[in-house]
This record gives sequence, C-alpha cells and structure tokens, in this order.
Amino acid sequence: MKLNCDLGESFGNWSAGMDQDVMPHIDMANIACGFHAADPLIMQRTVALAKQHGVRVGAHPAYPDLVGFGRRSLACSFDEIYSMVLYQLGALQGICQSQGQSVSYVKPHGALYNDMMQQPDVLRAILQAVADFTPRESLTGADPLPVLVMATADNTQQEQLAAAVGIPLMFEAFADRAYDEQGRLVSRRILGAVYHDPQQVVQQALAIAQGYEVSTLTPDVNVLLKADTLCVHGDNDASLQAVKAIRRALNAR
Amino acid sequence: MKLNCDLGESFGNWSAGMDQDVMPHIDMANIACGFHAADPLIMQRTVALAKQHGVRVGAHPAYPDLVGFGRRSLACSFDEIYSMVLYQLGALQGICQSQGQSVSYVKPHGALYNDMMQQPDVLRAILQAVADFTPRESLTGADPLPVLVMATADNTQQEQLAAAVGIPLMFEAFADRAYDEQGRLVSRRILGAVYHDPQQVVQQALAIAQGYEVSTLTPDVNVLLKADTLCVHGDNDASLQAVKAIRRALNAR
Amino acid sequence: MKLNCDLGESFGNWSAGMDQDVMPHIDMANIACGFHAADPLIMQRTVALAKQHGVRVGAHPAYPDLVGFGRRSLACSFDEIYSMVLYQLGALQGICQSQGQSVSYVKPHGALYNDMMQQPDVLRAILQAVADFTPRESLTGADPLPVLVMATADNTQQEQLAAAVGIPLMFEAFADRAYDEQGRLVSRRILGAVYHDPQQVVQQALAIAQGYEVSTLTPDVNVLLKADTLCVHGDNDASLQAVKAIRRALNAR
Amino acid sequence: MKLNCDLGESFGNWSAGMDQDVMPHIDMANIACGFHAADPLIMQRTVALAKQHGVRVGAHPAYPDLVGFGRRSLACSFDEIYSMVLYQLGALQGICQSQGQSVSYVKPHGALYNDMMQQPDVLRAILQAVADFTPRESLTGADPLPVLVMATADNTQQEQLAAAVGIPLMFEAFADRAYDEQGRLVSRRILGAVYHDPQQVVQQALAIAQGYEVSTLTPDVNVLLKADTLCVHGDNDASLQAVKAIRRALNAR
Repeated sequence: MKLNCDLGESFGNWSAGMDQDVMPHIDMANIACGFHAADPLIMQRTVALAKQHGVRVGAHPAYPDLVGFGRRSLACSFDEIYSMVLYQLGALQGICQSQGQSVSYVKPHGALYNDMMQQPDVLRAILQAVADFTPRESLTGADPLPVLVMATADNTQQEQLAAAVGIPLMFEAFADRAYDEQGRLVSRRILGAVYHDPQQVVQQALAIAQGYEVSTLTPDVNVLLKADTLCVHGDNDASLQAVKAIRRALNAR
Repeated sequence: MKLNCDLGESFGNWSAGMDQDVMPHIDMANIACGFHAADPLIMQRTVALAKQHGVRVGAHPAYPDLVGFGRRSLACSFDEIYSMVLYQLGALQGICQSQGQSVSYVKPHGALYNDMMQQPDVLRAILQAVADFTPRESLTGADPLPVLVMATADNTQQEQLAAAVGIPLMFEAFADRAYDEQGRLVSRRILGAVYHDPQQVVQQALAIAQGYEVSTLTPDVNVLLKADTLCVHGDNDASLQAVKAIRRALNAR
Repeated sequence: MKLNCDLGESFGNWSAGMDQDVMPHIDMANIACGFHAADPLIMQRTVALAKQHGVRVGAHPAYPDLVGFGRRSLACSFDEIYSMVLYQLGALQGICQSQGQSVSYVKPHGALYNDMMQQPDVLRAILQAVADFTPRESLTGADPLPVLVMATADNTQQEQLAAAVGIPLMFEAFADRAYDEQGRLVSRRILGAVYHDPQQVVQQALAIAQGYEVSTLTPDVNVLLKADTLCVHGDNDASLQAVKAIRRALNAR
Repeated sequence: MKLNCDLGESFGNWSAGMDQDVMPHIDMANIACGFHAADPLIMQRTVALAKQHGVRVGAHPAYPDLVGFGRRSLACSFDEIYSMVLYQLGALQGICQSQGQSVSYVKPHGALYNDMMQQPDVLRAILQAVADFTPRESLTGADPLPVLVMATADNTQQEQLAAAVGIPLMFEAFADRAYDEQGRLVSRRILGAVYHDPQQVVQQALAIAQGYEVSTLTPDVNVLLKADTLCVHGDNDASLQAVKAIRRALNAR
C-alpha cells in the first residue's frame, strides 16, 4: 500500500504545502505541471526533493486555471484534453530528465480528475495521451505509464477504457474521507465528509490496506475498495501528523 | 545549407503564419512551445505537419510573454531561464513522442535569442538546460541536441561556452537582412536593414551558402558568416515567395 | 434597431476581426476586456476607433480563458463571476476615461453569455456586478448600465432578475441564425443553423426590426422576438457585406 | 507622516501577507491589481478590508508577470506601460466603486517602480496614464490622483515630469532600509542594507518624520529625505511588530 501526495503546488513567490516535511514519508509524489500550480523552477526543486528521498515522480496535469487552482471544471474538447496532458507530461519529463529521473505515473488533478471519473470521454482523452506518450523506440522498450484513478465499488468502466489502449491503472483510496454506498467520496459540503479524528483515519487506512470493507455514511452499509495507494495530504500540521500515523500503522502490520 | 523557419505561432483562436504553405520548402521547423505563442493543440498540429513533410522539429523556447510575443526582454535569473528551457523543451518532446517524432535541436526565440547573443549568462543557462536534457540511459545513447545561434564575424565566445558543456552549435544567417561590420544584424529601425528585393535576397543566400563574404551597410566592407542554416519566414506571401526563390537557387547550384 | 458587434478581439501580436471596416456601420461596439481577447493596448485602440465613429462602447466581459477564447464554460462561483465582471468593466472604463469616453452597456461574451441564459445564478451575479458598478455620488447622478441579453420567445425570467436589482435589459436578436420554437438559437452543429444567403439575412433583420415573427426550423412555426438590437459580425468579408446590407435595408425602411 | 503598505498580494488559492493584522495600523493600502498578484475576488476582499478600517486605497499596478511577482523588469514600450496602468487602475476603481469607495492614489509596483525611478520614459508613461484617468466631466470636478515615488536626495526630475502633466507626487521613504549618499536604497544584496533592529527602524522613522537627516552606509555622511509617507510591510510577524512600533512612536511625538 503506497502513499501518494500532491506536491509542488507553490507558484512563483507563493508557497503552498509542507513539501519538505511530507516527502520523507510518502512513496509517490504527484507533481504539479504548471497549469494549476507550479512553475518550471518549482518543478525543478520538487523533483530534486523527490529524488533525494527516493520518491517516485508522478505527473499531476490539470486544466489551465491558475486562479482556480484547477478545481473548476472547464468544458474542453477531447483534443484539447489529449494535447494538454501530453504537454504537461512532457514538461515534467523534461525537468526529470535533467536530474536523471523519469515520470513514472500520471494522476490528473482537481476538476480534471473529477470529470475523468464522471465523463468517459475525458478519461479516454487522458488515457490516449498517456498511451501515445510511450516512446516507440524498440531499444528503450519503455512500458506505458500507469494512470491513477479513484477506487470505487465498481471500476469496470475505467478498467475497460484503460485496457482498450493498453494502459495499466492504479487505484487510490482516501483514509480521511467518508464514502457513500457506491464507494464514491462524500462531498466535502456534507457534514462528516472529512475525518478529523486521527484514530479514525488510521483505522480506515488499515482497513483499506488489509482488503477489508470500509464503512459508509449509510448506517450498516460497508463498501469494498480495491486500492493500490492511499492519497495523503501535506497541507498543514494536522495532515502531516496523519501521514506519519498512517505510515507507522502500515509499517507495523 | 538548411532552411529553418519559425512555425506554430498561432494561439488558441488566433492564426499566424502560413505554416501549410511554407512547410514543404524548409528543412527545420522552429516550433513555438506555449510561452510566446502556440498552445498544446497547435503544437500537436504543427508537429504533425512537420512530420508529414519530413521536416526536422526544433524547440523554440521563449520568455513567458504571450502579450509581447516573447519579444520583450525579461530580467530572469540563471535558474529561471534554465528551468523554463527544460520545461518548454520537454513539453514539445512530449507532443513529438505521441507522433513517433523527436525534438532534434533548440533555437531560442525573440528576446531570449537576442539576450543570449549579448549576455553570456543567458546563453550559459540555455546550454546547460539543453545539455542536462540529454537522456542518461546508456542504452539509448542519445547525443545532446544542438543549439542554433546567430552567425557573426566572430562566434568564439559562443563556441567556448557550448564546448564547456558538450553542446554542438548550429549557426544561422539571414538572407533578407543587412549586416554590420561585426556581422551583426542591423536594427530594423535603420533604413535599409531589411531587403525587399527578391534578387538581392537570393544573392545573399547564395553568397552565404557558397562561403563568400556578404556586403555590410558600410561601403566596401564585407563580412564572412560561417552558417549552417538560413532563417526564412512564412509570415506572408512575399516571404513565402522568397523562401521558394532561395530554395530554387540553392538546389540549382 | 441598433447594430451591435463584437470588436477588439485581437491579442498582442495576433489580429482578429475587420474592426476598421465594420466600425463605421454599427451603433454599439462590444469591446473585449482582456479575459478572452484583447490586451490594454488593443482596448485603447478599439475605444479610439469607436470614438472616431461615434459608436457606443460596451464592455464584453468573459471567463478568464484566452486559449479557449472564452468559449468554454468554466464552473465559477457567484462571487468569482461577480468580481470578474466588475474587474473587466472597470478596466475598460479606465481606458475609456482616458479618451473622455464611457462604457455605456455590458454584453457578456461566449460561454459566460450562454451560461447566463441558462443558469439564473450566473445572470444574477452579472446583474449584481453591473448594478454595484453604478457610481453612488449624487452629483454624477449616473444611471445603471443596461445589460444585453438574448431575445427569446419568453424573457420573463431575465426581466425579473434584472428588475430585482434595478438593471435595464437590452435584447439582441440574430439576423443570420436559425431559431427554434422557444426562440433560442439553433446550435451551429445543426445543418441550416447559420444563414449564408444575404437575402435571407436581410429579410430576417427586417422582420425583427418591424416586430414581425421570424420563421423557425420547425415548418409553419414562427416565433416573435422583441429585440432592441441585432448582433452582427466583422470576422470576414462575407459578414462585413451582411452588415452593410442590413444597415442599408434598415435605413431604407 | 502616513504609513503605506503593499496589500492584497494573495492569488487564487495562494495566500500572502498578514493583511488582516496590518490593515488597522496603516493609512494607505497599495492594492495589487491582478498583474503581479491578486485576482478580482482578492481585490474585492482587500478593498472591503481597507474600507472597514478607513484606510485609503491606492492602485499598485505592475508589469504582467505573476510568476515573477512583478519583480522582473520587462522591456515595454511607452504605449504598453501607459495602457497597462490605465487598465489596472480602472479595474481596481471598478471594484472600489462597487463598495462606494474610490482609488485615491497610484504606487507602481516592483520592477515597474524601480524602472520608473531610473528611466524617465517609464515614469512619463505612468504619469500620463494617471493624468488621463482623471474624469473630464465638469460636474464631478475630480482632481488627478497623486503618484507615489521614492524620496531621494534630489527628486527634481520626477517633480518636473509630474508638473508637466499636472500630477501631484507623494514621496515615500523606508524606515528599515539603509540609504546611500544619493538617498537611494542600498541593494538588498549588500550586507547591512536591511535593518532588523526594531529600535533602529523606529529611530529612522522618527528622523524622517521630523525632517532630520538619516545616516547612510558611508560613515559620517547623512542625507535628507523629504517624505510624505513611510513604506511598511505586512509580510510576517517581525514586519508587523515594526509597523506597530513605528505607529506608536509617530503617535507619541
């Protein structure tokens, strides 16, 4: 059970996230590519930090919306999404290459992530971009990069779309969020959607890691999430403490 | 003697350049990378057009200045230039890769190009970025990409900086521009700086291609430019006619 | 019956629209405010051109989306729309003021316009912004600016929302577009949605101007559009000819 | 002796500055206009905060450079600077108007400020923009807004340029920065350029307020700065404490 975290979300003079503190405790760093956050210099530094801690680098592409931090859905065409994913993926790979590193997976950000889970065409555009990003030279024998999507009660549709273009998927779950009966995240606007009790967060992390069902907001209804990775946060002290507690609990199994 | 041309300089809904018309007649397409012009979709289309005509793709990185078309000098640090070149180079490579293509050289754009010719630190940052972009895996055995700079009477400084990081240079000259005694372009604001007579343009192209000196704005003073490529333009009908005339003249040698 | 036209939609080095040619024939210029097109310098020049021809200046605010030309819906909050309209309205007023001119109405652009016609909260945010833009000093006694919306078979909802904040509405119709039974524009993707026959365009313009019903794509079904202004286009020669033909026909009544 | 402070420098999801804490202690808020920082929503909130504390609102226009926070000089033409100042000034005025407020002065930001102090054409473009922003209607009888420039040993040139277009100047000095013999700020890169000792800061504030000379980095050389306002900072706790100490000292005179 890997821990993944959104990082490198500063921009120019503005700082965001406790990247230095959280990096030592995670396995996969989802690094912003300049469309919702980050600029080339911040990407450079974030890749260096990931390298220093042996953390895998993932591209975290987004809609072009710095003001909205990529959290506002933008009505894009298939071709627009396809090419913007390639652009961001390549840009991060360029930065990685300069440090002898490589992008090793892709996790769409914010509204692009949400739209991908709800609109098959959005997911299809992303998958096609990642598939076509694979270098074709036989010598390098590169495999296509996996795409990280949300684990729900039923990921059949995502699996079919990914299989169609030969892209492996990774599934992520959340230890600090309440789920509904379909295994979807309960909206943050609903009371109880976010868990603040560290013990509850650790407990859900362990349940997911061990392949047990997690409870939902509907009493007596549980849901099974098959997840490869847990999404953790490095925004503030509380989330940093949660990351450490989850890490300790997973290690202690 | 190769012909290189700035292409892919449309942006979103706005069109620029006669890319379709000029592409068949050139050898090297300097493709905008989204900082002074182009967006991911336009880059996608421009790479496809280059591929169709067997034209080499070059990255055309610039200062981040869409409003100013990258023509306004921006006081950037070494690290800012270094990382913005890597970002743009990688972004174009990502687009190329999706079409089985590859970026094969780098030509800085506009104010970045001018600054690089005048400020050694700017050139050094660009060269270091291109050097570090080279993939390190032994199997691929990739060579560093060449950087295209302006041919002048004396390019010693550029050659030394490039040699220091193992980057090959390519030198470009202009058939339609007047030179001064140092082999630098005469400012467009000076009368006579731009040649409009097709015959004169072709004559200068041939002189450069054959290794002869070209005349300067100073009477009876000529200058020798060692150039690998001529920069041509695809902005309008007149420049398109000039490209065709130069191509015919070079072929007829 | 006034003619309004979207103008000032160039951006930096990129040109769009035949502003010089169409300005003499229209009454109202909807001037881009920098979010979907235009930059401060282009706004300056477009206001000067409007002033020269005695054409009223309208603000043409949009979602922040240069790459998409403001044509992609962006999921914004009420407050985001409210403040972005004020920002753009003020910016154009600043430019106008420098030439002794004034913004005299507001017409939302592209996706913001479409969203406003379909989502009451979007319209409400726009109307509130325009209402609050009215200077409060008693001496100036300024009236609130009218907002231009699409004339449909039933504009009751828009009228109620506008009345609630004391904003006058202006209604626009299209001479070159087919209508459906609800008096809404037929999507451009439907065959027959755009009229290319100049005679048909002029005929629909006259029908609207004279208060007659216009035909719809449903045979034998007409619809009555109460319009104060016709939206015309200055994109190319054909649209320019249409503007002139409409102007002549209206003058000849 | 008024205290002015740069405020409203957050951007989208990113926070900057302790605006809430510093606003009660200052007289003049230099509010970012979206080119180096701030977006329409943040401008809206910052103007509301200024209004709540009865603080004068000043426009803080900048070069268009969010990534560089407006601190990188950009080679702009006279017309570009002229129109970008009008645009930003108008945008902030639009926001102010919605709250019954008004922009009451202009202080250029960062690299634009530095360039204005060194290049007469830059200052001339700014002054002309502010002069032309003045509403022309006789009834309102509006006066031109003052422009805030740096107090040096000799401001003759700035005074002449301002007088030529009828713009009043305000001069600002710094309590926490070392001066050189010409009354210019010593570069932050020089040791001793920034005062960290609160007592020294208060002492320099009082000297300036009382019309005494301040010491320079050259031993035994003092310089007289005629200032209307002191520039203070709200970046962190230390700068906030300095603001309060200066305020107390000025009040106690």
